Amino acid sequence: MIDSADLAAFRDMLGAEGIATAPNERLPYETAARYGKGVAAAVLRPANTAQVSAVLSYCARRRLPYMPQSGNTGLVLGSTPDPSGTQLVVSLQRLRELRVDVFDRTVTVGAGVRLSALNAALEPHELHLPIDVSSDPMIGGMVATNTGGARFLRYGDMRRHVLSLEVVLADDEGTVLQLARGLRKDNTQLDLRDLFVGSCGALGAVTCATLEVHPRPKQVATALLVPRDTDSILDLMAGFENLAGDYLSAFEGMSGSALRHVFRYAPGLRNPFGAELPAYAILVELSSMRAAHRQGEPALQTTLEEITASIACQAAAPLADAVFGAPEQFWRIRHSLSDGLRSQGEVVGLDLSFRRTQVLPFRNSAIRMLHEEFPEYEVCDFGHIADGGLHFNLLCSSGTGRAAEVRKRVTQLAVEQFGASFSGEHGIGRANQADYSRYTPSQIKRFSAEVIKVFSTLPSAAIDFGQ
Amino acid sequence: MIDSADLAAFRDMLGAEGIATAPNERLPYETAARYGKGVAAAVLRPANTAQVSAVLSYCARRRLPYMPQSGNTGLVLGSTPDPSGTQLVVSLQRLRELRVDVFDRTVTVGAGVRLSALNAALEPHELHLPIDVSSDPMIGGMVATNTGGARFLRYGDMRRHVLSLEVVLADDEGTVLQLARGLRKDNTQLDLRDLFVGSCGALGAVTCATLEVHPRPKQVATALLVPRDTDSILDLMAGFENLAGDYLSAFEGMSGSALRHVFRYAPGLRNPFGAELPAYAILVELSSMRAAHRQGEPALQTTLEEITASIACQAAAPLADAVFGAPEQFWRIRHSLSDGLRSQGEVVGLDLSFRRTQVLPFRNSAIRMLHEEFPEYEVCDFGHIADGGLHFNLLCSSGTGRAAEVRKRVTQLAVEQFGASFSGEHGIGRANQADYSRYTPSQIKRFSAEVIKVFSTLPSAAIDFGQ
Repeated sequence: MIDSADLAAFRDMLGAEGIATAPNERLPYETAARYGKGVAAAVLRPANTAQVSAVLSYCARRRLPYMPQSGNTGLVLGSTPDPSGTQLVVSLQRLRELRVDVFDRTVTVGAGVRLSALNAALEPHELHLPIDVSSDPMIGGMVATNTGGARFLRYGDMRRHVLSLEVVLADDEGTVLQLARGLRKDNTQLDLRDLFVGSCGALGAVTCATLEVHPRPKQVATALLVPRDTDSILDLMAGFENLAGDYLSAFEGMSGSALRHVFRYAPGLRNPFGAELPAYAILVELSSMRAAHRQGEPALQTTLEEITASIACQAAAPLADAVFGAPEQFWRIRHSLSDGLRSQGEVVGLDLSFRRTQVLPFRNSAIRMLHEEFPEYEVCDFGHIADGGLHFNLLCSSGTGRAAEVRKRVTQLAVEQFGASFSGEHGIGRANQADYSRYTPSQIKRFSAEVIKVFSTLPSAAIDFGQ
Repeated sequence: MIDSADLAAFRDMLGAEGIATAPNERLPYETAARYGKGVAAAVLRPANTAQVSAVLSYCARRRLPYMPQSGNTGLVLGSTPDPSGTQLVVSLQRLRELRVDVFDRTVTVGAGVRLSALNAALEPHELHLPIDVSSDPMIGGMVATNTGGARFLRYGDMRRHVLSLEVVLADDEGTVLQLARGLRKDNTQLDLRDLFVGSCGALGAVTCATLEVHPRPKQVATALLVPRDTDSILDLMAGFENLAGDYLSAFEGMSGSALRHVFRYAPGLRNPFGAELPAYAILVELSSMRAAHRQGEPALQTTLEEITASIACQAAAPLADAVFGAPEQFWRIRHSLSDGLRSQGEVVGLDLSFRRTQVLPFRNSAIRMLHEEFPEYEVCDFGHIADGGLHFNLLCSSGTGRAAEVRKRVTQLAVEQFGASFSGEHGIGRANQADYSRYTPSQIKRFSAEVIKVFSTLPSAAIDFGQ
């Protein structure tokens, strides 16, 4: 247990700015973005890698439970303390290094830099980190959870962008490791780097990353597609993959029920469908790194309209309707879905992921099961159909549902019968511990625990990979 | 040391087809694709994962040194035995599972399937594994070396394609592990999978992989570009990245000296440059997943010609000349370079990789140094400029050079002064042991050795990551 001598030691180590103990100062670090609120023994705010090392070394030697935290925007309690009041938050927000190498198309960026700040720094160079999420996380957390998002089908996850990492271990020395060297091609070491991506800090804290970044698209075009029925969604996707090819950068499914709630929640949001909402809609996005109107080439918007028309003309067309409009408008709808649902009642949110072929069979099966066993829940899902990702949200708008029970039942159906991942892209944290313990083969748990022991004598308190 | 009882045990375990001891049978497994020839104690050819497990368990218990081997096309002695005659080759060639999931765009493929065989199986579905190398490796070795290649700038390396792995550990039980589940998005476990990619079998043998595959391009266009001078290459690349955007799929530099030797070596190869070869040329490739001539869109070949013309028209244009021609013809030149050089004398081949900004400064510096210190060597380099990869080949066409000495000197210059990787894409094996030992921080060696111990009690004999 942490005592006053420990707090004094941290104050000596970090200065007054480096430690927060008053409840109002601690509050933002204790409050999770969406679910849950804990109590921290204290919040430590090291200003640089050397101070992170001193903190983790001290925690390891004294066996003080801690959690690294950066933006604290995660959804799985990977960075917020539990209610016990015994866990330290090690905030990495003050690690704000940011160096852009324009020609190399890489950035070296501290754990405490927000995605929006990184992209603002990249914008003058027409570059960006193309990971699209509804929140504004910091780089440390993005690495530690391996953030995915809505443009995964084109750009992949954080793992794909991480060229090298600086990490600090929770061992007696607070060892600082440089993992890889910021090169695109480098096969000279065992890949320890990727162990830290998606590790939730279990092996140590990520303090700095060198990332590959990409040119910004020069053209973006979007449409909202209404499939003939949900059984046609895969054919519609195959049609777009075939005809749009390289241009396809998002294919986001949204259920009619989720759309209904979002338009009710945010009346300022324009409903492009008219009075009757479709049962399902898809936000399709094409983007191109090539400028518009070069030498007789049609603009991307024209290309999108032509592809859509050509699919609509097919016999037994998988497409019933399409609405064209500005990307910002359509993405605002997509990014409001989650909050829209939450304004309407209790939401059980499941971040599932499947083989592409299994998304819709699961969806049908789960809807049938819920109708019979949990009729108080309405399915308001949306998802990244082309990557197999499905945000399977269940809304209980009247009274209290059986949240824990329905979560367990749906997860079981998804994992055991459809080979799903119970955490597709939100990473892993305390909220996943029960599912992790239940669905992870004991062999994998054993090897994971052994690997973690190689690095840190005291893993982060956020999740126990050995349990 | 292996004895006759061991050989009898292996014969019992694997049957007559599963073990080769006669010198002529062993020969192809002992002979490296390019450099070196060793002697195997015996060649074991397990027919399935269970037999691999039995073999590795036996080797681990008896402490018999072994090397996993699949296609044996590698260039760093990662799969061929040393000359001692004490090492067993564990060939994975008989592991030939091959299942295509067309709609999911994934394949599950045994370690013994050749890249060409995989692509032949994918072709009817208009899919491919888009990793382009001059040889025809097997999947096991591609995973174990993390193969890169000439289309890396668009598709990345093997790591990017590996969704899950089956691996067999060299421990008492010959443990079989399934690492991840073949999903694109899955963040439910510590990432043990990526430890095995590029590991040269040090943690165990890769027996099967589930890989993401891609649609084949429907259009490909190529040109050979002659930059104004080598200082203009980066501007030329920036111009193509800016104007070709998504279409750019290769930007391969080739020195005039390498070209001269390849045309001399293979007179059947058409020289598209005419009598006077340029000092440097670039094979640029655009490709598109969209079919040609859709609704007024120019064909990709026209787009390439227009981009080239537009760059050539700029003031102080970085482009002196361009030749257009069939992709097969130009790629045949590119893929013949290596053998072309080898036919002309002793070649010291270095597989270096840099930040993109460092490739040409290194090249200039190394050419100057070689001119002074090693005048008997001619620089005949080629490389993947856009990824920072450089195959820095040194040819000694008359008499004997100072191969070991020049290799050491150039590597030192590259690593110490230009932050290079000494093995960009050929992976790591016995040939890299000295560089690994020299340039790897001792901390990284220590952690790597500890991680390997978690998995296998007897690592592959191909490289010692702890040394």
